[in-house]
Amino acid sequence: MSDTPASPKSHGRLRIRPTLQPRDLMEEPRLVNGAFTAKVITLFPEAFPGTLGLSLTGKALDFGLWQLETIDLRQFGEGRHRNVDDTPAGGGAGMVLRPDVVDAALCHARIGTPADRTRWPVIYLSPRGAPFTQATARRLAQGEGLTLLCGRFEGVDQRVLDHHQVEEISLGDFVLTGGEIAAQAVLDATVRLIPGVLGNAASTEEESFSDGLLEHPQFTRPAVWEGHEIPAVLQSGNHAEIARWRRTQAEALTRARRPDLWEKRGR
Amino acid sequence: MSDTPASPKSHGRLRIRPTLQPRDLMEEPRLVNGAFTAKVITLFPEAFPGTLGLSLTGKALDFGLWQLETIDLRQFGEGRHRNVDDTPAGGGAGMVLRPDVVDAALCHARIGTPADRTRWPVIYLSPRGAPFTQATARRLAQGEGLTLLCGRFEGVDQRVLDHHQVEEISLGDFVLTGGEIAAQAVLDATVRLIPGVLGNAASTEEESFSDGLLEHPQFTRPAVWEGHEIPAVLQSGNHAEIARWRRTQAEALTRARRPDLWEKRGR
Repeated sequence: MSDTPASPKSHGRLRIRPTLQPRDLMEEPRLVNGAFTAKVITLFPEAFPGTLGLSLTGKALDFGLWQLETIDLRQFGEGRHRNVDDTPAGGGAGMVLRPDVVDAALCHARIGTPADRTRWPVIYLSPRGAPFTQATARRLAQGEGLTLLCGRFEGVDQRVLDHHQVEEISLGDFVLTGGEIAAQAVLDATVRLIPGVLGNAASTEEESFSDGLLEHPQFTRPAVWEGHEIPAVLQSGNHAEIARWRRTQAEALTRARRPDLWEKRGR
Repeated sequence: MSDTPASPKSHGRLRIRPTLQPRDLMEEPRLVNGAFTAKVITLFPEAFPGTLGLSLTGKALDFGLWQLETIDLRQFGEGRHRNVDDTPAGGGAGMVLRPDVVDAALCHARIGTPADRTRWPVIYLSPRGAPFTQATARRLAQGEGLTLLCGRFEGVDQRVLDHHQVEEISLGDFVLTGGEIAAQAVLDATVRLIPGVLGNAASTEEESFSDGLLEHPQFTRPAVWEGHEIPAVLQSGNHAEIARWRRTQAEALTRARRPDLWEKRGR
């Protein structure tokens, strides 16, 4: 307790009120040890943090809620030209990343990380991998960090993937020029689930895929726009009715657009 | 013909030989009109070109094989603070992009583009959309350009999506903090299919999903690494055997890892 005119309590409230940011983001010192850490092996370290350095993920990076380390694959290349790739055995277009070069990078990334892959997954981003989903993001966010290997060209020598028991994850059924954008998508989806990152900005509970459904349609002001009104139920103030309407919309949307998701849910 | 010691022919060959870049990339002037154009509506224009400015997509951008225009959604915001969003009608967490603000941005993006959506798709990147696939990338690459709307927060007022008949595309069954990384993935997959972009660097024919299969494993030098040899068939020089082995591997991998893709193929 204090005898000064301003009581500690109102002082405390004044200190906290100026922004809507959660207290831990505003007042805690930067976490250096123990924060979720992403190590990214890439031929284009300058691609990072990229979009991850902006908005919520960027603020969280600045506040030390997660850390990002890029590992330049080129430095492990062979000879004067730091070659990292060679032609595919058996012929064919493109180039394949060499097993010895990728091995050196993976060994470097392993320093200071737990061997237990549930605590620290080691992932190669490849269209041959398991499809990335919200469940994968949740699993990755529960670890202490992860190592992401970004491919380029025609891929990576299979022997080094087997040797290091690298998990393969695919962003989807399409082909990218490299793994860098896929790595950013995986990190964005993962980092936003780390406690404190979203703050008050949004809820991870009420959104797409959290219950196996697509999200219901959203509306905001103005109430009438170009002659189109917001559905009356949303303006009724009847919370039970609103919840029922949203549920019905989400179910109908999922059935119509994504019968595959709808079927999985029924199981 | 010339009487100077160096013949024009050998001079020409010398000019072309120093790199493996295809001739059209090296010698054609920058295309300004007529190149594939991406217009991206975003609250984070500084996220672009990002990774798209590097590597093959970046070279293609420099050479004018495609063009990128960012449209800052903020400039269409309301009032002194340029507000672009408001609370969801009916309550709930997060904020929803206003229909009038998004409408103004979409109208701005429409200037100079064909009304025919097969020639110029208008796409909102959203987890509620149709899953993005290689077939979508091929369709988009055949157009003259496209407009991408990047969402943030809890989404976009449904009325403006309906009014503009915006196509919804999802990168996958996961939630991102915004549409920017998804837009980059869609553009990367699309732009690499534009003639001239990949050059001699790789083939789009022999890769994942072009025949509904995951790609076979790849190997390169050294022939023996950490005691693991490259499969003998790939070193046999027998092209028919190699093709058969790769096909068998691709089929087995697809069946094991992606029964969903394998079933679709059978239809």
